[in-house]
Amino acid sequence: MNLIILDTEDFTGTDQAVLTGRRAEHLNNVQKTLPGDTVRVGRLNGLMGSAVVTDCTPCVVKLSNITLSEAPPQALPLTLVLSLPRPKMLRRIFQTASTMGVKEIILINSARVEKSFWQTPFLQPDAIRHQLLLGLEQAKDTQLPRVELVKRFKPFVEDELITRAKGCQNFVAHPYHARPCPTNIDTSQHCYLTIGPEGGYVPFEVEKLMEIGFQPISLGARILRVETALPVLLAKLF
Amino acid sequence: MNLIILDTEDFTGTDQAVLTGRRAEHLNNVQKTLPGDTVRVGRLNGLMGSAVVTDCTPCVVKLSNITLSEAPPQALPLTLVLSLPRPKMLRRIFQTASTMGVKEIILINSARVEKSFWQTPFLQPDAIRHQLLLGLEQAKDTQLPRVELVKRFKPFVEDELITRAKGCQNFVAHPYHARPCPTNIDTSQHCYLTIGPEGGYVPFEVEKLMEIGFQPISLGARILRVETALPVLLAKLF
Repeated sequence: MNLIILDTEDFTGTDQAVLTGRRAEHLNNVQKTLPGDTVRVGRLNGLMGSAVVTDCTPCVVKLSNITLSEAPPQALPLTLVLSLPRPKMLRRIFQTASTMGVKEIILINSARVEKSFWQTPFLQPDAIRHQLLLGLEQAKDTQLPRVELVKRFKPFVEDELITRAKGCQNFVAHPYHARPCPTNIDTSQHCYLTIGPEGGYVPFEVEKLMEIGFQPISLGARILRVETALPVLLAKLF
Repeated sequence: MNLIILDTEDFTGTDQAVLTGRRAEHLNNVQKTLPGDTVRVGRLNGLMGSAVVTDCTPCVVKLSNITLSEAPPQALPLTLVLSLPRPKMLRRIFQTASTMGVKEIILINSARVEKSFWQTPFLQPDAIRHQLLLGLEQAKDTQLPRVELVKRFKPFVEDELITRAKGCQNFVAHPYHARPCPTNIDTSQHCYLTIGPEGGYVPFEVEKLMEIGFQPISLGARILRVETALPVLLAKLF
């Protein structure tokens, strides 16, 4: 936790807040803060800055002199369209995307996504939000990503993605008939990046994406897990 | 498991092998192979190719017609010098490094590494080898990385790294006084990349590395976990 993120409900005054739960525990047990110490804080979806610890008990930490003046780091100009990964990977993927500055994540069904994956408790809004917050706290960022769940691939691509991705740089991570993943792309233009499930897209899905202008890009001969391919693709593109 | 890796002890003849344990289970339960099916195999530290399944029982799979003619994917011209990460991260880091083609990993102590980390069972040779194999099976590679454990930072850097890294491109991932991580570096020259522990190197350690010619490089304002920084650094450098 490199940044304590404050939500509206934490504030008890203009520049005062009370923390309980995970954040209080972290300040007490990991950072071992004492009254008088200054800590780094940020307002959810707002600015970052500092606060002074005024009181620490095992379960409650009180902050005052909250000063917020610093903009959070730049977001990636990217919408990530990801075939729903296996639940045990999902939490890590949310964290990684959030840490790396992705602000729009669309989880989509596709042929090789197991139907049971949609039942995971990790897709509950609170569970998603928790992982995204962990990612922001790690990165020192305050801008919570938006997550959409899309259960039908074809109508989404044909009717919605075609419009949303118009005029953007659009890539499908797919190792066949692909060019190498471009590096340092123009960040003035928004980018859509789709990543298929374990085992990849079926040909029909790649064709649908190519029909609406998505270019296949490859990461080379090595086959990476989605959780590794994601940071690698983002690192190369941006 | 995108590649079944065969070790010398698996062979029962020049082109025949018997698999038990994890690989037999995978062929039976995940790939659901039947006698007559062809599967992708590779010889540990050798070539890759195919084999024909001749017999499947729940615990044993027999292979014949093993044909090995394809070279494994290129290795990264890199030695990774990594401050020993927290044990729960270690397995994933071994897998990621192995999947991405790192062939030389030096785990080193440094000031902010907790002493207890060195006691983890995940540092036992068999445990390390297991994670590295999982990484190779994922990537479709056969070349097992070498891992060294180094418990003293200063003498290693001053007496050994100085010689080994001579004439190489040498980088220390460290966000202060650093230039942005270079991209697509010259792969004809070997590279040493050091990554510090959670919380970073102490100034003395960075100075020692800089003294022997390591250039500080940064990944920008966002603070990444080591397990994310590693694929990001490799993706940018190569």
